[in-house]
Amino acid sequence: MELTGTNLIGGEEVQGTGTAFQGVNPVTGEALGPIFHEAGAPEADRALVVAEVAFRAYGHAPAAERARFLRAIADELMALGDAWLERAHAETALPLARLQGERGRTVNQLRLFADTIEEGSWVEARIDPALPARTPPRPDLRRMLIPLGPVVVFGASNFPFAFSVAGGDTASALAAGCPVVCKAHPAHPGTSELAARAIARAARATGVTPGVFSLLHGWSHEIGLALVRHPLTRAVGFTGSLRGGRALFDAAAARPEPIPVYAEMGSINPVFLLPSALAERGEAIAQGLAASITMGVGQFCTNPGVIVTTADEAGERLARDLAARLGATAPGVMLYERLRESYVDAVGRARERGAEPLAVAATSSPAVPAALLATDAATFVADAALREEMFGPVSLLVQADGPDELQRVAETLEGQLTATIHGTGEELREYAGLVRVLQRKVGRLIFNGYPTGVEVGHAMQHGGPYPASTDGRSTSVGTAAIVRFARPVCFQDFPQGTLPVQLRDRNEHGIMRMIDGVLTRADVGSPA
Amino acid sequence: MELTGTNLIGGEEVQGTGTAFQGVNPVTGEALGPIFHEAGAPEADRALVVAEVAFRAYGHAPAAERARFLRAIADELMALGDAWLERAHAETALPLARLQGERGRTVNQLRLFADTIEEGSWVEARIDPALPARTPPRPDLRRMLIPLGPVVVFGASNFPFAFSVAGGDTASALAAGCPVVCKAHPAHPGTSELAARAIARAARATGVTPGVFSLLHGWSHEIGLALVRHPLTRAVGFTGSLRGGRALFDAAAARPEPIPVYAEMGSINPVFLLPSALAERGEAIAQGLAASITMGVGQFCTNPGVIVTTADEAGERLARDLAARLGATAPGVMLYERLRESYVDAVGRARERGAEPLAVAATSSPAVPAALLATDAATFVADAALREEMFGPVSLLVQADGPDELQRVAETLEGQLTATIHGTGEELREYAGLVRVLQRKVGRLIFNGYPTGVEVGHAMQHGGPYPASTDGRSTSVGTAAIVRFARPVCFQDFPQGTLPVQLRDRNEHGIMRMIDGVLTRADVGSPA
Repeated sequence: MELTGTNLIGGEEVQGTGTAFQGVNPVTGEALGPIFHEAGAPEADRALVVAEVAFRAYGHAPAAERARFLRAIADELMALGDAWLERAHAETALPLARLQGERGRTVNQLRLFADTIEEGSWVEARIDPALPARTPPRPDLRRMLIPLGPVVVFGASNFPFAFSVAGGDTASALAAGCPVVCKAHPAHPGTSELAARAIARAARATGVTPGVFSLLHGWSHEIGLALVRHPLTRAVGFTGSLRGGRALFDAAAARPEPIPVYAEMGSINPVFLLPSALAERGEAIAQGLAASITMGVGQFCTNPGVIVTTADEAGERLARDLAARLGATAPGVMLYERLRESYVDAVGRARERGAEPLAVAATSSPAVPAALLATDAATFVADAALREEMFGPVSLLVQADGPDELQRVAETLEGQLTATIHGTGEELREYAGLVRVLQRKVGRLIFNGYPTGVEVGHAMQHGGPYPASTDGRSTSVGTAAIVRFARPVCFQDFPQGTLPVQLRDRNEHGIMRMIDGVLTRADVGSPA
Repeated sequence: MELTGTNLIGGEEVQGTGTAFQGVNPVTGEALGPIFHEAGAPEADRALVVAEVAFRAYGHAPAAERARFLRAIADELMALGDAWLERAHAETALPLARLQGERGRTVNQLRLFADTIEEGSWVEARIDPALPARTPPRPDLRRMLIPLGPVVVFGASNFPFAFSVAGGDTASALAAGCPVVCKAHPAHPGTSELAARAIARAARATGVTPGVFSLLHGWSHEIGLALVRHPLTRAVGFTGSLRGGRALFDAAAARPEPIPVYAEMGSINPVFLLPSALAERGEAIAQGLAASITMGVGQFCTNPGVIVTTADEAGERLARDLAARLGATAPGVMLYERLRESYVDAVGRARERGAEPLAVAATSSPAVPAALLATDAATFVADAALREEMFGPVSLLVQADGPDELQRVAETLEGQLTATIHGTGEELREYAGLVRVLQRKVGRLIFNGYPTGVEVGHAMQHGGPYPASTDGRSTSVGTAAIVRFARPVCFQDFPQGTLPVQLRDRNEHGIMRMIDGVLTRADVGSPA
């Protein structure tokens, strides 16, 4: 599997015309071959034209065909074998065992979306049959979700498989019937090229038009903005920084014809530790938190960045215990040099704002130290800078003077992917006000658990109110993500044979539909 | 029922601090008492603070309570009796019979949303029960839609009941659990005040906190922008002009914390007349089109603004027939003076761009003439100005040289609320390419019908790709509109008793839920 360093546009290798760059091993600092060239506006245009043409067929392809394609992608990714794992390991410093797990998640995700579209109810079919005898007569109305068109997906750095080229956004867009133009993350270009070639092979193997997928490389912001501004782009999926996500959102909103941007931009994922829980199992909580904070060198969107306790004896014990654990954490190397710099800067800024370091692990460059900082609730509430995400293995311990201050801390928070409460069953009732406040702020609310570890299933919500994401009405993980890339269309008085199969009287695929307001798998006209 | 001219904030009369204005009878030009005062930023702030406080209770109120409230609003609106109809008639020049029909639609809409939330499945509950024995263990995940918070609704001028103060956006937001701050349309302030008082009485009668609804008057754009920019506003519903809707969208996107704007901005609703259908029933089509174009003095978002025919004999006959009918249309008075001016300007501009007047009905001010303009497909494709909406009783006939040019006309169109095809069953198959192109452009595709007349039901889609609306993923008419004002939240590992009732193992209300990927009304743990 020789890497070529080229872009892949509708199955064809296309040499980029922009700046040259290479993957870099973050542990050794060594540049990895081959040389990649950034794609420019002409390549962006070509990829989107190819995607638009492909959409005219793929957007109407039967679900079974799209499902076959998704499963073939999963198979081709597995067929890359150790080469894919090793390249990703070299480009990201993520351990092989973690990458193996992430690969499993990635292929399972593709297969889960294949199952979802084969089952078929996701199109939310609604049928109000004609009532010709009513005054005025009611026409026959049939509504379902259809794919939006070409989607631009930005690969994320922190999940080089599961949120990158063949990751969640690509899987849900392809499942919905949308072609994908993916902008590779420049921190793992080789890993990206391997995944893109696997997708292209899967398209060939299943007879899907190759224009449904293109990969463009890019090192600067220009190519990303060109893709978002391109008139044929219909939606955008992104996982990354607040600054990056907001820039794409602003560009999309300023278009002559605005388009949705689903940017998941991380958050500080506050963890509230209630007194009785801390008294009962403080040590287990400290252990769980230390693992959650340092897992993957803290490079998860759901990393617990803020821990809120009451300033009592159990709270003090937790602080000491957690500090000891984080202080003893083995140093880890972050995904790329710029992240390391940002991490060091963010911790430094928090310390300048008065956050006191309870622990800073020993380390030597390029590894970064895990750390625990502390402040009191009044300072945290007063200083918005302390509520900014520090991406990496660090958490800020916030000590509150009792329940009222705990709730004030919650009220001051911006939108979050998650919030966590550790408490006894009794405390959960006692702190019902806190739960309500947190529910306003988050996509996922966790009881007696840890925010890292995002299950790919049906009931997951990954995405919360801004700035956790630009569209808190939607999830980037789990099968519910498929509706991001679809919109409803209603057919009025169309003859049976010309309707999409999901809207005909006979419910050929046995999907769940709403007929005259009642959810049923029955045919139209037969008893439900 | 004495009008006071005041704003209504959480049930309290609050005198506006801004410019004075009055309702005007568009037929006589006479100013109608009382004097209204525009609300200012302090009133906007007060209304949103009141709404936010109300949300803390109303957002968690049981569905039965919200349903009772919606039905009480319907009852209170009916109890306004003829006074409401007559005031609306005086302020809008809409005939009493039409207003009576629209009132029926308005109260039915409120009752339909009451039914929808009582049934309860709209929250899209999803449950993935814990799998403690799996490696790694799966937590218990339960996801459902919850209300967003305070919603700002802009009353529309063209439906003083059904898309105004107690209209569709207000009904769906209140149904979802969101308080509403409504900006009254300045063309019918008295009608608006009556509706707002009915809502306030319904709140009192059902014990709902009065802060769930406020009405603010406004004549300029300032108050609307202040509402959209207010930090407590969580979403916006609007029906009106492209310029107005886009200004609100831009203001919302530029907020520190962007919020969704559902602006329905109308469209030209193209009607394609295929040759065999025209040959078979050209006269009936001309009759149907003339009625659709002139209904309500052409003041419908779904007014058929463009009619596309092939340039053959049947096409010529249709042109003559339609011209004769429109030329003989009785003159009508538009909703307010500025609309009349815009209509006259728009028709004048189209004529300057070379559109030929086939008919202009006789009239005298303040009434406006129905009109039919004509151009050829090449000119229409080349000149974007001819594709702009002319709000009023006018349509532009576009003559195409055969199927290819017909399809080119379709390809050149922007996003539309609707498109219509008249054809035989055979033609529908023959022109499958045209159908596919139109499907990309619209929210609703109509066969052998007319776009005006928007059914309020379950399967309606009212909203299409931009510029028909700012969010084509959503509808402003029908029960599916309720999800606009909601977002998902996921509860992880919460004890049964602390979960919302919809997510508990026992399915108390028998709603449809997805359990482990399977849609069912069963309890968790019992066979589906």
